[in-house]
Amino acid sequence: MTTGRLFLVPAPLDFGCAEQAPLTDVLPDLTLRQAAALQHWVCENAKTTRAYLKRVQAIYPLPCALQDMAITELPREAHKKGDHVGASSFDAKPLLKAALAGHDIGLVSEAGMPAVADPGSSVVRAAHELGVPVLPLVGPVSLLLALAASGLNGQNFAFVGYLPQDAVDRKKRLQDLEQLAHKTSQTQLFIETPFRNAALWRGLLEGLQPQTRLAISYGISLAHGGHFSQTVKAWRQSHPSACPAGDLPAVFGLGR
Amino acid sequence: MTTGRLFLVPAPLDFGCAEQAPLTDVLPDLTLRQAAALQHWVCENAKTTRAYLKRVQAIYPLPCALQDMAITELPREAHKKGDHVGASSFDAKPLLKAALAGHDIGLVSEAGMPAVADPGSSVVRAAHELGVPVLPLVGPVSLLLALAASGLNGQNFAFVGYLPQDAVDRKKRLQDLEQLAHKTSQTQLFIETPFRNAALWRGLLEGLQPQTRLAISYGISLAHGGHFSQTVKAWRQSHPSACPAGDLPAVFGLGR
Repeated sequence: MTTGRLFLVPAPLDFGCAEQAPLTDVLPDLTLRQAAALQHWVCENAKTTRAYLKRVQAIYPLPCALQDMAITELPREAHKKGDHVGASSFDAKPLLKAALAGHDIGLVSEAGMPAVADPGSSVVRAAHELGVPVLPLVGPVSLLLALAASGLNGQNFAFVGYLPQDAVDRKKRLQDLEQLAHKTSQTQLFIETPFRNAALWRGLLEGLQPQTRLAISYGISLAHGGHFSQTVKAWRQSHPSACPAGDLPAVFGLGR
Repeated sequence: MTTGRLFLVPAPLDFGCAEQAPLTDVLPDLTLRQAAALQHWVCENAKTTRAYLKRVQAIYPLPCALQDMAITELPREAHKKGDHVGASSFDAKPLLKAALAGHDIGLVSEAGMPAVADPGSSVVRAAHELGVPVLPLVGPVSLLLALAASGLNGQNFAFVGYLPQDAVDRKKRLQDLEQLAHKTSQTQLFIETPFRNAALWRGLLEGLQPQTRLAISYGISLAHGGHFSQTVKAWRQSHPSACPAGDLPAVFGLGR
């Protein structure tokens, strides 16, 4: 019997947004066809996965009824912010049982590419350990769309996840990242829970040096989205208090 | 008169490869339609851009004959490895003259996403300075497909470009990256000119610690491609001398 494969299936970036774009705007035909062929899924949230599959089904027929799909959620331990199996914590091998029984499995995230800026990497690692072939499919990756649109250095960059919530710790962390960006030319990308965008924005304009370049992308891949990039000095003049993203999911970047 | 926009148009990853996949495997319909609507292009190489547009034309009609497209190559200065306009060197604003005259422009790279791991970011930065809206389109990004498929930490990662070619310098750089990965859990991604894959591979197996996890992705998005990830110790046993990528373009990652 041949082992099944683990497909990394990207999701659109518009879940939870008022506006939804057609799946064909952000997913290539091959991704849609492969997604439509799978019956076994590992995900963060079964409900959004079913909603996603319903949108896929409007384009390609699924192999079975939605309620008959085998959808398994990642365990709670996997969801801790910044968690990575290297440290830690939970064994994802049981989630791949169907692959060992010969079925292809789809790993899907809440938005964008699974295992990037989300807890899926433990599943991918388990696949490698079990000899299950891993096949990433093409789709939107908010971090990289933001990086490309920032005009910041794309030949050396880092994504560092979330900054500390505590204002003092955040200021220290920001200064470290800024120093690194100035010293090494490495662009520093980070994200924030949308309802904290405003607090982060104040922290950025207060804490960063005027000549540092600060980029923000929000509503990525959507019609109301935007990509802006200028020096902190210019931001202080144009947007002294309100974060341009409002409370939309955003990606922030700083560099020189 | 309305200013034109700068579209960041991703290219497939198969240029220069013996095997080519259909564009629809890696580019969403919206990307193809937007690319097909543009008459003004900024690129690294006009010849590959015309070859790309010929493939687009097989799917959607172009607004004019290929030889009538306005295709401008980035100046030589932009191509230096690791160059970034932050330091440097050339003013990309003249490349955007058509946008100021009301025309949309496409920025396209030799492979994947423009302005990521290539010299396009100067053009994006110039667009922001001129008030030309920047719109990134979805397509394949080899770095992120490799990261997702690596099972390495995707919640904190860096892409550092090329390592030094000199063996002693490379060893030192690798040890620094390995130390950073162990200390901060930040995955370190890097690339190499394909004909140097073998030398890099020897350097990796010799210089890294046995428990460090080393991932390699090659032929990304193609049928003969592969994604593998295991400890240096396991690589020393399974692939003691030959790089699994042969001389195909590859992305390397290390982490814990």
